Amino acid sequence: MAFTHLAEDGSARMVDVSEKVPTAREAVARGRVILGDKVFPLVKDRNLPKGDLFGAARIAGILAAKKTPELIPLCHPLPISKIEIHFALNEAEKSLEIEARVKTVAQTGVEMEALTAVSVAALTIYDMCKGIDKGIRITDIRLLEKRGGKSGEIILEKGGLHGSQKA
Amino acid sequence: MAFTHLAEDGSARMVDVSEKVPTAREAVARGRVILGDKVFPLVKDRNLPKGDLFGAARIAGILAAKKTPELIPLCHPLPISKIEIHFALNEAEKSLEIEARVKTVAQTGVEMEALTAVSVAALTIYDMCKGIDKGIRITDIRLLEKRGGKSGEIILEKGGLHGSQKA
Amino acid sequence: MAFTHLAEDGSARMVDVSEKVPTAREAVARGRVILGDKVFPLVKDRNLPKGDLFGAARIAGILAAKKTPELIPLCHPLPISKIEIHFALNEAEKSLEIEARVKTVAQTGVEMEALTAVSVAALTIYDMCKGIDKGIRITDIRLLEKRGGKSGEIILEKGGLHGSQKA
Amino acid sequence: MAFTHLAEDGSARMVDVSEKVPTAREAVARGRVILGDKVFPLVKDRNLPKGDLFGAARIAGILAAKKTPELIPLCHPLPISKIEIHFALNEAEKSLEIEARVKTVAQTGVEMEALTAVSVAALTIYDMCKGIDKGIRITDIRLLEKRGGKSGEIILEKGGLHGSQKA
Amino acid sequence: MAFTHLAEDGSARMVDVSEKVPTAREAVARGRVILGDKVFPLVKDRNLPKGDLFGAARIAGILAAKKTPELIPLCHPLPISKIEIHFALNEAEKSLEIEARVKTVAQTGVEMEALTAVSVAALTIYDMCKGIDKGIRITDIRLLEKRGGKSGEIILEKGGLHGSQKA
Amino acid sequence: MAFTHLAEDGSARMVDVSEKVPTAREAVARGRVILGDKVFPLVKDRNLPKGDLFGAARIAGILAAKKTPELIPLCHPLPISKIEIHFALNEAEKSLEIEARVKTVAQTGVEMEALTAVSVAALTIYDMCKGIDKGIRITDIRLLEKRGGKSGEIILEKGGLHGSQKA
Repeated sequence: MAFTHLAEDGSARMVDVSEKVPTAREAVARGRVILGDKVFPLVKDRNLPKGDLFGAARIAGILAAKKTPELIPLCHPLPISKIEIHFALNEAEKSLEIEARVKTVAQTGVEMEALTAVSVAALTIYDMCKGIDKGIRITDIRLLEKRGGKSGEIILEKGGLHGSQKA
Repeated sequence: MAFTHLAEDGSARMVDVSEKVPTAREAVARGRVILGDKVFPLVKDRNLPKGDLFGAARIAGILAAKKTPELIPLCHPLPISKIEIHFALNEAEKSLEIEARVKTVAQTGVEMEALTAVSVAALTIYDMCKGIDKGIRITDIRLLEKRGGKSGEIILEKGGLHGSQKA
Repeated sequence: MAFTHLAEDGSARMVDVSEKVPTAREAVARGRVILGDKVFPLVKDRNLPKGDLFGAARIAGILAAKKTPELIPLCHPLPISKIEIHFALNEAEKSLEIEARVKTVAQTGVEMEALTAVSVAALTIYDMCKGIDKGIRITDIRLLEKRGGKSGEIILEKGGLHGSQKA
Repeated sequence: MAFTHLAEDGSARMVDVSEKVPTAREAVARGRVILGDKVFPLVKDRNLPKGDLFGAARIAGILAAKKTPELIPLCHPLPISKIEIHFALNEAEKSLEIEARVKTVAQTGVEMEALTAVSVAALTIYDMCKGIDKGIRITDIRLLEKRGGKSGEIILEKGGLHGSQKA
Repeated sequence: MAFTHLAEDGSARMVDVSEKVPTAREAVARGRVILGDKVFPLVKDRNLPKGDLFGAARIAGILAAKKTPELIPLCHPLPISKIEIHFALNEAEKSLEIEARVKTVAQTGVEMEALTAVSVAALTIYDMCKGIDKGIRITDIRLLEKRGGKSGEIILEKGGLHGSQKA
Repeated sequence: MAFTHLAEDGSARMVDVSEKVPTAREAVARGRVILGDKVFPLVKDRNLPKGDLFGAARIAGILAAKKTPELIPLCHPLPISKIEIHFALNEAEKSLEIEARVKTVAQTGVEMEALTAVSVAALTIYDMCKGIDKGIRITDIRLLEKRGGKSGEIILEKGGLHGSQKA
């Protein structure tokens, strides 16, 4: 078992994918923002006419997914063919779930794109709420699903925020 | 209590800081990467000659801090005057702690810069280890300390990874 | 009368502002998107729960204002201290007015930042509506107001979309 | 008739193009800069040895076309295979016409790339001439031609500034 | 013999590659940093635990290769499939050799990506050593090898720093 | 004598400049592109109406100077107040000299900005001429002058391409 991104001498490298055939790929990632007692009711009960809180976080996440190879040094540039970001409030935990779903047809997968989208959407929520409570936490950023490529389908956890639980 | 980044009609806006006087500011943020049983020993026992795993994550985090206003829509561009990123392994939790410390002399604080540095350093670790285990989780990204500006010093938790616990 | 951005031999240069004292500056710019008969009623009568059409254009415009020195070759990087973008529908012309208001404390003005914000917000509206009508036009992008610096206050036209006419 | 970039609940999304087959595509866009009485003769009669006014605007437009997916939130990253930008002076209107022609082989079109190139080239002209007249207007940015993909060839207006009218 | 990047009237253009078939391509470039008497021994005898000097330069070079179409106005965006950067110290010349090897499957080559990677890695070395000696020089940046496309294999000089001479 | 950009444990860091007072600073850097027998006469005898060869390289260099903190990991973001780039042909050496002059008022200097401008202008020349000769070399990139800050004026070599030798 070895680090694919490190050469034998330990130096970082971008893995060679030039021999691989482009295939359809998909990744779903999720994370949670613990909003807490002060921020949660304000987010939940918002009757904001334009709702730019989630709107801004969604756009930030989509743009960040496209910036992944610029942010994560050893990521390959990929022709992303779809990005969707969904939000769901969790009353019990006073938290906000964020899920990103990314697709491509490429030689390598879009896990990092999905994880980056979730991370930056979460940071945007933090930024817009930090005037109320600086103790907000971003947590549990992880990969849920991955499809395509040599390893086929991997379901670590089932995604689907765009279904019934949606904010 | 209201969202400073939303106008009365709910639309997003970049808050006006033009009347504020630039002061010295600092922020410390931290996060944790749960490496798990497969990845932790490989990271811990690495006798990699160049150690590019932490090195790459550190550079990625530093560059990301400088990109914060490009990633987080309502953040102000700031003349960052210092960025440091530290790592510490936690044997019990098989995890890696990441701490960022950012300074500026500006009209607004650098919390988002520190949180963004931690997030992108953590994503870089995930990327370089995902070939071994895709179940790695990024968790507990939060602000520890904040100094300067109208609110003065706020210590939510005491930072200091660059001390004894350092990786 | 000469081009300040061209040296005597006609070569492009970034004008020297190092001797100028930073002062508070503001610029207001406006533009219009001619939506036409097909798109206008859909935009006007939208009872979209999250209204991400204007939300996305606003975020795109704010981010673009911060990218101005990267897009316009001879623009100076500036510490933008505020950006606001407003929209207003014009029933008679079946059009959408977009107005950007940008502030800084710097050695040079923010006209280009305001004009860039309007342009990119307008392009984003075009992008999101082009599936319905490709004949949409972006027109009348111009400076309305400018304050601060040697030339003081210049009012070419009075801004104020954030007032009564707001969408 | 619906907004393809908005999900049923009104949230923004990047449209899924992963099922589409890459085909050759082309788009031509045009816009006009109303230079006015003061600036027009200086641009027209320039006997600038290096002519960096149009040169700078052309490079800015080409670079901006490549930045389109970074500027317009829901645009897909595309492997642009050609960009050309042409200028033509219009004596009667004291204006400058700017036309961009962009090609790709991809799953979606390059309309936004051509419109973005025109917009940023126009903003660059404004920037370089604003020291002489701040009343310059950017107007009539629109799509002229589109080729390739499911909708085939669409000619809204015939392009061709690179022909006889060229500056 | 003519400049492919200039139209007949001398204006810059991005060459049309839309008719070309994507093929596997590779480029190897090299450059040298003359460190001099003060800096060379410090770099050579470093027993730095993390060796972030070369690590930082390597990451900077890899990220810069991916930014090539953003930096070099007429370069096409390409799906880079591999980047490797190698260093070798030259005792006799008190210099550091930097070699970049880049691969893609695309309609045009990656010479500029390899040259840009070498240049930015060299600038990063300069930056990190300039506190000791500002007289460091970056020199002899050139293409060594090029494979793929119409011109086939071109060996101007044989690369291979990743072999015996490696730092 | 130690590397200011490496902490005691060898890890990279962005040096703390928050205690330093902003002062006027200037840097001049130069480099040479060895064009060779095939390319030199074409560049020299160009009677190109728009001369976009040098124009494109100049714009690329100016934009790159503004991107320095994004390219060079440990560079501080700076409010650049002037950038000029000059070219001079050298008949004897069949080469092109490139000189960049950058100014700021900041807590740290602009050496890296000037060196980056020269490097990217040189790469742009290479790119536009590589269709004629791939053996072009970029060489002798170095700092000539530096003014401002604690170290005051340092003249390693006298700059001044904008004088008599200008291309």
